[in-house]
Amino acid sequence: MITIAVDCMGGDHGPGVTLPACAAFLASHPDARLLLVGRPEVLQPLPAGLDPARCTVVPATEVVAMDDPVEVALRRKKDSSMRVAITQVKDGVAQAAVSAGNTGALMAIARYVLKTLDGIDRPAIATQMPNAKGQATTVLDLGANVDCTAEHLLQFAVMGSALVAASGRQSPTVGLLNIGEEVIKGNDVIKQAGALLRQAAERGDLNFHGNVEGNDLFKGTTDIVVCDGFVGNVALKASEGLASMIGGFIREEFSRNLFTRLAAVVAWPVLRSFKRRVDHRRYNGAALLGLRGLVFKSHGSADAFAFEQALVRAYDAARNQLLERVRARIARAAPLMAPADAVAQPAPNP
Amino acid sequence: MITIAVDCMGGDHGPGVTLPACAAFLASHPDARLLLVGRPEVLQPLPAGLDPARCTVVPATEVVAMDDPVEVALRRKKDSSMRVAITQVKDGVAQAAVSAGNTGALMAIARYVLKTLDGIDRPAIATQMPNAKGQATTVLDLGANVDCTAEHLLQFAVMGSALVAASGRQSPTVGLLNIGEEVIKGNDVIKQAGALLRQAAERGDLNFHGNVEGNDLFKGTTDIVVCDGFVGNVALKASEGLASMIGGFIREEFSRNLFTRLAAVVAWPVLRSFKRRVDHRRYNGAALLGLRGLVFKSHGSADAFAFEQALVRAYDAARNQLLERVRARIARAAPLMAPADAVAQPAPNP
Repeated sequence: MITIAVDCMGGDHGPGVTLPACAAFLASHPDARLLLVGRPEVLQPLPAGLDPARCTVVPATEVVAMDDPVEVALRRKKDSSMRVAITQVKDGVAQAAVSAGNTGALMAIARYVLKTLDGIDRPAIATQMPNAKGQATTVLDLGANVDCTAEHLLQFAVMGSALVAASGRQSPTVGLLNIGEEVIKGNDVIKQAGALLRQAAERGDLNFHGNVEGNDLFKGTTDIVVCDGFVGNVALKASEGLASMIGGFIREEFSRNLFTRLAAVVAWPVLRSFKRRVDHRRYNGAALLGLRGLVFKSHGSADAFAFEQALVRAYDAARNQLLERVRARIARAAPLMAPADAVAQPAPNP
Repeated sequence: MITIAVDCMGGDHGPGVTLPACAAFLASHPDARLLLVGRPEVLQPLPAGLDPARCTVVPATEVVAMDDPVEVALRRKKDSSMRVAITQVKDGVAQAAVSAGNTGALMAIARYVLKTLDGIDRPAIATQMPNAKGQATTVLDLGANVDCTAEHLLQFAVMGSALVAASGRQSPTVGLLNIGEEVIKGNDVIKQAGALLRQAAERGDLNFHGNVEGNDLFKGTTDIVVCDGFVGNVALKASEGLASMIGGFIREEFSRNLFTRLAAVVAWPVLRSFKRRVDHRRYNGAALLGLRGLVFKSHGSADAFAFEQALVRAYDAARNQLLERVRARIARAAPLMAPADAVAQPAPNP
């Protein structure tokens, strides 16, 4: 039995989306239980489809708003649904927590409540993007960390490898996001990170492919792409913006006049099949990695289908023992993660 | 009369693409002259369509290869078509130079031959991306500079404003590329750059909108988006990768079977019109800004239509006196561009 704690109040839509998603998830996962965290007056009585034998309401009196500053979420709202859900993981009552609430607050609370794993300076946010091979590229970090050091990038690579390996892909390849070879080949941090990743590959800690560029995210050149949170966040949001623009153009062109509307009817099965392939909802559910517990973040604007995917991702991670895998990989790569000056330190004279 | 020096040998295809593009460009620009730079044995006799009264072959015996290291291009190939084209600008024989050659070499040679403008530490590469408003967002830097300071970002903003204003847009808006508000709001450089841009706006040097995110590139929230070259390069290439993946999916879905092929025939006018809207060739031609002369960079893989757009962009810039505009704006904003410690320096005691 896998138990997931769900922040039912988070996201743009709250229980209107999270509860139907929970019902759909339970229907397809007979060995799962859910802790529905939130205001009891909103969650009870349980709507039809939520089997009371597999759902328990865990009361929380407060809700972190999407625009709450991190300080407010962390220090003032100690009984928020987000925090209570994460506390279920800390207390060992749930194997993972899922929230569609504000990312900054979720990361801060998760870090405060769960703490980071030994050897991890900063947790990272990892998500999947669809690629041209029909698979998914796992990208991290997506915005939790700006100004990363080479050691942080190595930690992201190790944690990302654990995440992808947990989903059954043996020895996943890691790419280091860099800029075109024909220009200056990255800054000092990237060069140092490249050297560390090569060392890690030689030691058998991970499978390093080498540098990749922005277009490789969608080519699917590597299973994992590692970058600092600023770059990752910009790349993700630029891609969302472009996809949305292209979708808008397609809609506009097909609804221009009677002829184009007819063409849309004829092309409908093709367009539907295309839309399914680029449906970002299928990739919803980012992992917060590097904590002493599993936490997954859903997009704030997720609908029930998308939120259900985040629940599935959390369930799979718990089932495939992601936490133990991350811990083991980090421990194995620990010698490379010590700050360079500590490694270079000569033994003290007797 | 506007004279443009064209590196006819550069790019993946060389004269096979550049010469037809030159012919098409001359046909639509009766007051333009071209200096065709390259190996005379390849360029002469001039193909039909290139009026000898408006085209002069300028001999250059060497060619910078797409994979030549910067050092080789700069120090060993002193008679390259790229360098000779730029020298025409330095010597005042041409008002702008255009090349589809290797970006790193072009930037290095342009910088060496032309030098930077007073007040500019580093030239930047500015390009246009289509946006959902049906206009274009001008983005810089695209890869010339990694590890930028706040003052560099201010210089990019000032030069970008001159570029967009030269195309007739009064008081273009500037956005500073940052990450989601709900996460940590950027690193120290970005925060300092934000403060400098606000000061510049108060002084009337430019029109600062504030922070923007990756998706704003394609929403068209601001006319100009400023970022360091690493982030800009990744965002551009990620967008190219996504656009190419989506294009591939559309082709695959429409060629799946007999029915979908028929649907493609019916939808053809709509698909063609859509394709035109997202045709990246229309946006070909990046400006190298901050030099004492105008240089434009075409995509290496450009076809004749795309290379012609780069020629048009160079022509428009020369016609609209981009160089003088950049120089004037930089001079006006100079007090903000001095390094902070120099500004804070107290007057020496008598």
